[in-house]
Amino acid sequence: MMKMNNIIEAIMGSDNFIITSHYSPDGDNLGSSIGLYYALKKLNKNVFFVLDDVLPINLKFLYEDIKVYKSEEVKVKDYNLISLDCGDKDRLCCSEYLKENYKMLINIDHHKSNDNYGDLNYVDPTASSTCEIIYDLLMRIDNKIIDKKIGNCLYTGLITDTGNFMYSNTNPSSFIMASNLLKLDIDKQGIIKNIYQNNPLNYVKILGDALNTLEVINGKIATIDLTYEMFKKNNISFNNVDGVVNYARDIQGIEVGILFKQKDLNVVKVSFRSKSYVDVNKIAQKFGGGGHMMASGCTIEDSLENVKKAIIKEVLNYI
Amino acid sequence: MMKMNNIIEAIMGSDNFIITSHYSPDGDNLGSSIGLYYALKKLNKNVFFVLDDVLPINLKFLYEDIKVYKSEEVKVKDYNLISLDCGDKDRLCCSEYLKENYKMLINIDHHKSNDNYGDLNYVDPTASSTCEIIYDLLMRIDNKIIDKKIGNCLYTGLITDTGNFMYSNTNPSSFIMASNLLKLDIDKQGIIKNIYQNNPLNYVKILGDALNTLEVINGKIATIDLTYEMFKKNNISFNNVDGVVNYARDIQGIEVGILFKQKDLNVVKVSFRSKSYVDVNKIAQKFGGGGHMMASGCTIEDSLENVKKAIIKEVLNYI
Ligand SMILES: [Mn+2]
Ligand SMILES: [Mn+2]
Repeated sequence: MMKMNNIIEAIMGSDNFIITSHYSPDGDNLGSSIGLYYALKKLNKNVFFVLDDVLPINLKFLYEDIKVYKSEEVKVKDYNLISLDCGDKDRLCCSEYLKENYKMLINIDHHKSNDNYGDLNYVDPTASSTCEIIYDLLMRIDNKIIDKKIGNCLYTGLITDTGNFMYSNTNPSSFIMASNLLKLDIDKQGIIKNIYQNNPLNYVKILGDALNTLEVINGKIATIDLTYEMFKKNNISFNNVDGVVNYARDIQGIEVGILFKQKDLNVVKVSFRSKSYVDVNKIAQKFGGGGHMMASGCTIEDSLENVKKAIIKEVLNYI
Repeated sequence: MMKMNNIIEAIMGSDNFIITSHYSPDGDNLGSSIGLYYALKKLNKNVFFVLDDVLPINLKFLYEDIKVYKSEEVKVKDYNLISLDCGDKDRLCCSEYLKENYKMLINIDHHKSNDNYGDLNYVDPTASSTCEIIYDLLMRIDNKIIDKKIGNCLYTGLITDTGNFMYSNTNPSSFIMASNLLKLDIDKQGIIKNIYQNNPLNYVKILGDALNTLEVINGKIATIDLTYEMFKKNNISFNNVDGVVNYARDIQGIEVGILFKQKDLNVVKVSFRSKSYVDVNKIAQKFGGGGHMMASGCTIEDSLENVKKAIIKEVLNYI
């Protein structure tokens, strides 16, 4: 066991807390932060949730009933800073002032890369999500403290970080947590609607355009293009379309799916997904990128046509 | 409690079994049948799994190691017939002879419509899947009998019938079952690859064509067309594309998604999906169809253009 007890003691023995998390907030970031926020309120703590970034609209159900503070709005002395779901102190989404003037920094996370930058650290890379760690923490503090509202927060992070239990980071304990939260009558179907049945219209439109470019090479490689024109025509942000690469991978017999995103006329971001045996991290590294064995990416400055030729030639070596 | 004990006694007290299930086999049908088949083998029973239908290729991992019998191949006297996941005796996928000459018919199912056609019946409409019932049954017979192989079968039916834990039929007990199966080191990721990352190439192609027809009416209704020409061009069976309707429903702000499948130049099958409050069962019934509150369908003999006009006019009354 890591020292979860030390963290519990530190929380129970203090009064003032600022909770923060990483930039580009996602379900686990907001779910763990707001879940812990509600629990500390129930423990009569003085607590602020600070995040200096735009909050995603599809997760509004998590934060619509609370005030999410900007750093400069918080005036509190002798605070403990609780950092959640953030592997790197530089990525903490609050002011330099708040990052430096805490009494104690408590770092709770599940990223392997976390370098234990806190005064107290609880970093468990085998945990599915920070929400699962917060669930365990709260159950140890008081196994009645998690109510429906906190449960909605923690369930959100659990499913967004596990791909709704699809990814291999799903543990037996993740399902136990899900079972216990469901017994609290959480709004599971509402959460699913907000997260999975809430695509921007322009996403579905550009997906249609993208699928029309689908090509299969050698029976094992499938490619999809998202051209500069498609982005202009559909008025959608470049960052909201990464899931499209899965349509290439998720075809019968395909081992490697590749998405070519033309960010500019001569800049192409390439995303790779493999299904079983090809290490796409190696392939991305050859082009100056990286990632994991089954999901990686790189950015190349050249025409779409040239990039596609070079990439496909390389991938064919691994098939 | 229904009489699960009676079923356990009947199974333990007999030697010869034929297991069968419904036509058009799916994950729960095959998963519960083959899972129970393996367990009865371990109990030294003489058991045959009979299914007189084509088996889906994406579920081959379930049946590739066993012989699935056709009715006329089975020569066994004094057999008990175990019917799984089938609400209606007429839909049992075996010969009339096998359906009539059993010693005892044991009917195990979770369909609300099941009319208790067996000599012994265990019908639990609150169960997520027949696989979850078989899981409970086997755990009661011997809580060590479920091994990795049986676990793979039961997990398959659990996730196919719950939409990988997305649907509201997912119970706290479903997650407990998932947790326990995962501890048996089942091949969860392999099952997911077979079921969710295994689309026919032509499905992805026709999906692209279909999404290009996406239209939004009144901000609340989204429609997608699958025309007769698309089916011809992409050479895909009419039955393999029902999931396309979800792309219409799963858009921000959309309440009703509608898919128009042109089966023939003057025959259109219409599928409805609602998100929150519209009862699409009522709408489908007006056109001679039916279904559930949030998922329904009907078939209309007219041109695609006329069908779309009539349907949209009707749906607008419910928005
Ligand atoms: Mn996380
Ligand atoms: Mn079923």
